[in-house]
Amino acid sequence: MAHAEITLAHGGGGRLTQQLIERVFGPAFRNPALDARHDGAVLNVPAGVRLAFTTDTHVVKPLFFPGGDIGALAVTGTVNDLAMCGARPRWLSAGFVLEEGLPMETLERVVRSMADAARAANVEIVTGDTKVVERGKGDGVYINTAGIGWIEQPGTIGPAAVRPGDAVVLSGDIGRHGMAILAQREGLAFESPIVSDCAPLWPAVEALLAGGIEVHCLRDLTRGGLATALIEIAESARCGIAIDEAKVAVTEPVRGACELLGLDSFYVANEGRCVAFMPAVQADAAQSLLARTAPGGPVVSIGRVSGGPAGQVTLRSVLGVERVLDRLSGEQLPRIC
Amino acid sequence: MAHAEITLAHGGGGRLTQQLIERVFGPAFRNPALDARHDGAVLNVPAGVRLAFTTDTHVVKPLFFPGGDIGALAVTGTVNDLAMCGARPRWLSAGFVLEEGLPMETLERVVRSMADAARAANVEIVTGDTKVVERGKGDGVYINTAGIGWIEQPGTIGPAAVRPGDAVVLSGDIGRHGMAILAQREGLAFESPIVSDCAPLWPAVEALLAGGIEVHCLRDLTRGGLATALIEIAESARCGIAIDEAKVAVTEPVRGACELLGLDSFYVANEGRCVAFMPAVQADAAQSLLARTAPGGPVVSIGRVSGGPAGQVTLRSVLGVERVLDRLSGEQLPRIC
Repeated sequence: MAHAEITLAHGGGGRLTQQLIERVFGPAFRNPALDARHDGAVLNVPAGVRLAFTTDTHVVKPLFFPGGDIGALAVTGTVNDLAMCGARPRWLSAGFVLEEGLPMETLERVVRSMADAARAANVEIVTGDTKVVERGKGDGVYINTAGIGWIEQPGTIGPAAVRPGDAVVLSGDIGRHGMAILAQREGLAFESPIVSDCAPLWPAVEALLAGGIEVHCLRDLTRGGLATALIEIAESARCGIAIDEAKVAVTEPVRGACELLGLDSFYVANEGRCVAFMPAVQADAAQSLLARTAPGGPVVSIGRVSGGPAGQVTLRSVLGVERVLDRLSGEQLPRIC
Repeated sequence: MAHAEITLAHGGGGRLTQQLIERVFGPAFRNPALDARHDGAVLNVPAGVRLAFTTDTHVVKPLFFPGGDIGALAVTGTVNDLAMCGARPRWLSAGFVLEEGLPMETLERVVRSMADAARAANVEIVTGDTKVVERGKGDGVYINTAGIGWIEQPGTIGPAAVRPGDAVVLSGDIGRHGMAILAQREGLAFESPIVSDCAPLWPAVEALLAGGIEVHCLRDLTRGGLATALIEIAESARCGIAIDEAKVAVTEPVRGACELLGLDSFYVANEGRCVAFMPAVQADAAQSLLARTAPGGPVVSIGRVSGGPAGQVTLRSVLGVERVLDRLSGEQLPRIC
């Protein structure tokens, strides 16, 4: 269905975001880097150097939440997109859209948090821009970060390298970031507060690469969550993926909150979790490397890549029932990042 | 004076923008690339390759204006910031913040315009992101672009290279972009409509570099206009600059509109004009190279760098009266880029 107007769902990371990319941005900007459909572009600069380049605007609401804030998110999100290209994150830009009337103290707190996150991820914020819009034309602060990283290993990491038989390893429990935001936004109080999983993923990726794992693809589980990440990779790689539901860790507070609100944790955003694809024979080695270096929760091999049908992600439940995961068609959680 | 809240003037490119950089962003993000206080960061990647990296968010209002639109501006503005680092513009990212309810046709028109501007500037848009915010939390569309360019010449172009005795060459008439926006926004009708000067500056920079000009500094004349660009360079270079007012070209429509609205054309934004600093002995050669390649209007050597006082820009009027140019303290034209 063609939409005459932008809806919140166009920014949700699901079917309408994909349509926007395929019908509006793709045809206008077409080039090989965009076609790769990955978290960032891989660029060949002179002298055989390869860079990754990526961008993300953050419009999260509220600005501050358990486990982070918009500043930490703006740095960590872009750092993680670079890591997912197999690139060592190195430099960030920061572009601010401030709403008239924003308390200076809020900006200072956000900026300090960006500086802390940059230090933690070992990147530098080297260039920036600030715009101010009138009251009612923004929402406190929006932050765009773009990032550059170096790719040191020779291979290409991305959906095109995924092969039938590859293992799918998941680095931790899912659903925390989205539910932390939602609980904060809706004023929900749970017995144990849900804390965002916002954390840099490069140390985990570096460990895989240094450990000799033949990493085929990496994807962080942001907007649209684990399900959307797997569907996008299955579509780009023209493979099927079969996941064992019981192996996917979801903490009790997240599971409870999802049930209460009628949400599926497989579609809830994370900011410090990824899936890694590698030859099945290396899955155990990859798991133990990730268990020592990934930011949190159990590291588990949750499934396998199959020959097909292309683009189909199948979830086998605890009871042995299989169901096919669909892209989100509407908007599950607006402004979670 | 310390401000407890963000005001529109914090985004105007004048004194308050500078305060924000010096008091909030600078101390938090401190690193050598930021300290250079130039349009973009110069980065050393492996194998001796040098890159320029820059970012700009565009919030121009209205979205469409004579001579351009937010899409053309978002591409051209970043391309020009790279060119001002002496870098060949190569790759852009694009981050959209769309307001719920934006007509799809408007987005498509803006995106086509970005694609056209990218083709004209010979750059590729290689990575992107889209966020959607609720009605009343944005204003149609805001666009961030970050850009990467290659630096091919060995020297460093920037305020630190400026020397007393350098000539200051201006590439065309000033004030068009800001007045085109303002006329459109306020519904002013002039005899001859004022058209934005929005255009890429790299061909002009490339001609200077290929022509053997020892380019010390380049600066495009965006927010804050010619006056602010010169003041910033004089401060960073710890030099004085003396400008001959009569040599600065302002078209009749721009002059008339500025008089009508009580604005000083020296502070009005441009999007396709720059100043270039080089040894005085090369000024004639630089002028003739720019006259063939810069986007519009007469190319003139408008003044000289002096020993001091550091940071002082002096304007000698047609009548021989000298006055010192000040930074804008308030907001002259909000949301002109």
